[in-house]
Amino acid sequence: MYEMHFAVPMAGAVLNTINIRLDPKNIATILRHSEAKIFFVDYEFVPKAKEALRLLMEEKNQTEQYSSLPLVIVIDDINSPTGIRLGELEYEQMVRHGNPNYIPEEIQDEWSPIALNYTSGTTSEPKGVVYSHRGAYLSTLSLILGWEMGSEPVYLWTLPMFHCNGWTFTWGIAARGGTNICIRNTAASDIYRAINLYNVTHMCCAPIIFNIILGAKASEKREIKTPVNILTGGAPPPASLLEEIESIGFHVTHAYGLTEATGPALVCEWQKQWNVLPKREQSMLKARQGVSVLTLADVDVKNLKTMESVVRDGETMGEIVLKGSGIMMGYFKDNEATAKAFGDGWFRTGDVGVIHKDGYLEIKDRSKDVIISGGENISSVEVENVLYMHPKILEAAVVAMPHPKWGESPCAFVSLKKNDAKKSDFFTVTEDEIIGHCRKNLPHFMVPKKVVFMEELPKNGNNKIQKFELRVKAKSFVENKNKKTNNQVNQNNHQILAMSRL
Amino acid sequence: MYEMHFAVPMAGAVLNTINIRLDPKNIATILRHSEAKIFFVDYEFVPKAKEALRLLMEEKNQTEQYSSLPLVIVIDDINSPTGIRLGELEYEQMVRHGNPNYIPEEIQDEWSPIALNYTSGTTSEPKGVVYSHRGAYLSTLSLILGWEMGSEPVYLWTLPMFHCNGWTFTWGIAARGGTNICIRNTAASDIYRAINLYNVTHMCCAPIIFNIILGAKASEKREIKTPVNILTGGAPPPASLLEEIESIGFHVTHAYGLTEATGPALVCEWQKQWNVLPKREQSMLKARQGVSVLTLADVDVKNLKTMESVVRDGETMGEIVLKGSGIMMGYFKDNEATAKAFGDGWFRTGDVGVIHKDGYLEIKDRSKDVIISGGENISSVEVENVLYMHPKILEAAVVAMPHPKWGESPCAFVSLKKNDAKKSDFFTVTEDEIIGHCRKNLPHFMVPKKVVFMEELPKNGNNKIQKFELRVKAKSFVENKNKKTNNQVNQNNHQILAMSRL
Repeated sequence: MYEMHFAVPMAGAVLNTINIRLDPKNIATILRHSEAKIFFVDYEFVPKAKEALRLLMEEKNQTEQYSSLPLVIVIDDINSPTGIRLGELEYEQMVRHGNPNYIPEEIQDEWSPIALNYTSGTTSEPKGVVYSHRGAYLSTLSLILGWEMGSEPVYLWTLPMFHCNGWTFTWGIAARGGTNICIRNTAASDIYRAINLYNVTHMCCAPIIFNIILGAKASEKREIKTPVNILTGGAPPPASLLEEIESIGFHVTHAYGLTEATGPALVCEWQKQWNVLPKREQSMLKARQGVSVLTLADVDVKNLKTMESVVRDGETMGEIVLKGSGIMMGYFKDNEATAKAFGDGWFRTGDVGVIHKDGYLEIKDRSKDVIISGGENISSVEVENVLYMHPKILEAAVVAMPHPKWGESPCAFVSLKKNDAKKSDFFTVTEDEIIGHCRKNLPHFMVPKKVVFMEELPKNGNNKIQKFELRVKAKSFVENKNKKTNNQVNQNNHQILAMSRL
Repeated sequence: MYEMHFAVPMAGAVLNTINIRLDPKNIATILRHSEAKIFFVDYEFVPKAKEALRLLMEEKNQTEQYSSLPLVIVIDDINSPTGIRLGELEYEQMVRHGNPNYIPEEIQDEWSPIALNYTSGTTSEPKGVVYSHRGAYLSTLSLILGWEMGSEPVYLWTLPMFHCNGWTFTWGIAARGGTNICIRNTAASDIYRAINLYNVTHMCCAPIIFNIILGAKASEKREIKTPVNILTGGAPPPASLLEEIESIGFHVTHAYGLTEATGPALVCEWQKQWNVLPKREQSMLKARQGVSVLTLADVDVKNLKTMESVVRDGETMGEIVLKGSGIMMGYFKDNEATAKAFGDGWFRTGDVGVIHKDGYLEIKDRSKDVIISGGENISSVEVENVLYMHPKILEAAVVAMPHPKWGESPCAFVSLKKNDAKKSDFFTVTEDEIIGHCRKNLPHFMVPKKVVFMEELPKNGNNKIQKFELRVKAKSFVENKNKKTNNQVNQNNHQILAMSRL
């Protein structure tokens, strides 16, 4: 896939990377929508690809809308070939038959598309985000700069390349003359081994990977000889998690972005004067989303009713809006969604945030995740941050639960950390204990009315917690309320969890 | 001038910085040609500016071609005002009357001009090089990247800001949230004091500044606590000079550029694998001009007769040609010169070089400085490099001298280092000794036929050695040949030099 990031644009074509965690139906949808001409498949995913192609063929026979199936090329393992095929062609063999004197297509228009990336689409059909050569190029430069990546980095691929083209580092590592370290699984042992063996200097990942690294068994750990720079995003890293991961040899830079912005659009640029602050305060500063990358034309937080910029007081919330070449050209074959995404020339992120006095942005929530309780806006992220401060909580997500009096009230879903010291694998904790913890750290109206324990929170292919699913669950609890008390439901949930662990 | 780099473009105007070392006549020529509307003058240069305006007025009265004189604003010393004025307006007073709510002009077309920089013009009228917003922006990003400049640099201005807008670091230091340290004179004591006092991390300069730093008296030196990164260009730094400056706490990156390329267009990107090589070999590698900055579309070395790329063998010479957004839009009001500078869409640098096997470019000479002796091309730079290896030589320049048999032959002009150990200020050395040194290190046909000793080589406002003047001198020696032998001329020169030192 790394080679494709160069070969496909150099052939004058558009690169459409596909999330390997999608199911065959999703993949068939993407292939149909993108009208891909060639389908490169890693040998490991041949069964999935085969099924996707079968679905496509079936659909073709029914509707006759899809004119032809893509040419399939399987990429076998170069070191220990498996012989797995799907059709005739194998990648390395094809490369060997290529013309080494081929002159790459010259890009006549820098606004022509280079890549098509389908968003994960939690609630709806996936949307195809189109990047221009210009946008991808400028974003690549911005991210090298924003991360202060020097030349000859050694980059570990834990962030998938199909995720906004690896936040542009597919191109960025080449621009910096770097080395790419690829691993098939983001297991703790593989991550530690790669870091130790190749002296990894950089990696990108969602904060979820911090948990994987921190949860490594003693036997899986290896020495980290020099600090590994982590660029994280996708979710604001809880302060406690930041402190833990930095204490074992990682240096974290926090960025904020979305597929439509070619990956990170804001970076929490560190200021040297912050180095003298207490660790906890440093983590709070670092958890902010930060300032615009250099190639973004503009960023703002706007009251979307008046389209006026909010006051820079760190409190007044508004929607984060972006403008610049790095913002997508639009959604492929979807003018309506494209028009809706842009207002007054600004791209609407759907994220609700504030601007601090020093100009740094901080996200308070996804606009659809804001809980409105008795007329008060509750940022689900703020409640989650408090939950993460609890020493036994591994993951937390807070969503709106219907409430007869307040309209909505916060409902917390949490998973617990492993407890190596005891026989039982996981810590145990009561709902009352967690609610008590929240009462100590939050205004009363923001305290979850209910805490649900789960073994693992539901996530999509990009490791993002699926709040959509949790909202459905939270709604069902209230519908069953007549039968049981809240506490009974919790007890039941906890028991089910406990049983599944046996 | 630093503030002007932001204020002028934000006002929708074009910035035309003027070299302070030019004489009033040159300045009048520039003001007339640029049609400057406002003329900002540092108090120190009021006499020069006054004379330039007088010349302009005189001309205006004679020809009535120049419609109006520019509005003059004197910039007084903010810390200790001198009261020096040229007309009514003073800069800080004007700023205080400004509107703090002024909204900067939005740039509608990124190809619109941002800056106009007059080249030093060794032989002809100065030419006005026009930069676009796009070109300046991209070059700025490239140079931060090429130099691997992190955030919050402390930058010492030894390179003047009027020189290609400080090689774009006027904008680049702001982009990196850096601190600008400005000094009025690039004297050794001021440089050392600034480095020591502000913990300077970066500075740009021509190799001539290395001599100033290395020539500091013991009393002028200050401790250099952390390595200072130097970006150098303008002339290939001789290997011996590189070694000396790096040994005292400077880390040198070598770049190559020209006004028409918005400053540096190539950077000799260092490769970690070179760190294990012997020092001398490292210096040789670093003296190469290197690879294209990231925002340059393309660079090549071409045989200008056939317009074919030369073989990448490190030997076959051709002219260095460039292409990209960072290349000037053209010469202001000079379509003929603009057309001549571009051939086949490539900008012709006028520099003759080779490409090594590893893709790094190395300049062999300015095309007009190549000496053709008995049909052999002699790179004046190659001969100069050998001269710089001599422990007593401070500066060296080699030009063509007419020769009855060979057509041309090399003539060397050198200045000598100071000898602190002896009563006499300077080292002494004979012509024979230097010719002997060249014989040991060069093919016979490349050895200078003549060595002229000077106290200081002639330089222009940008500290570039004026080979044009030296060529005139070299020609005159041959014309006087019938009267004296070469040696006698040298003796005379040396004696004149010695006298002027008394």
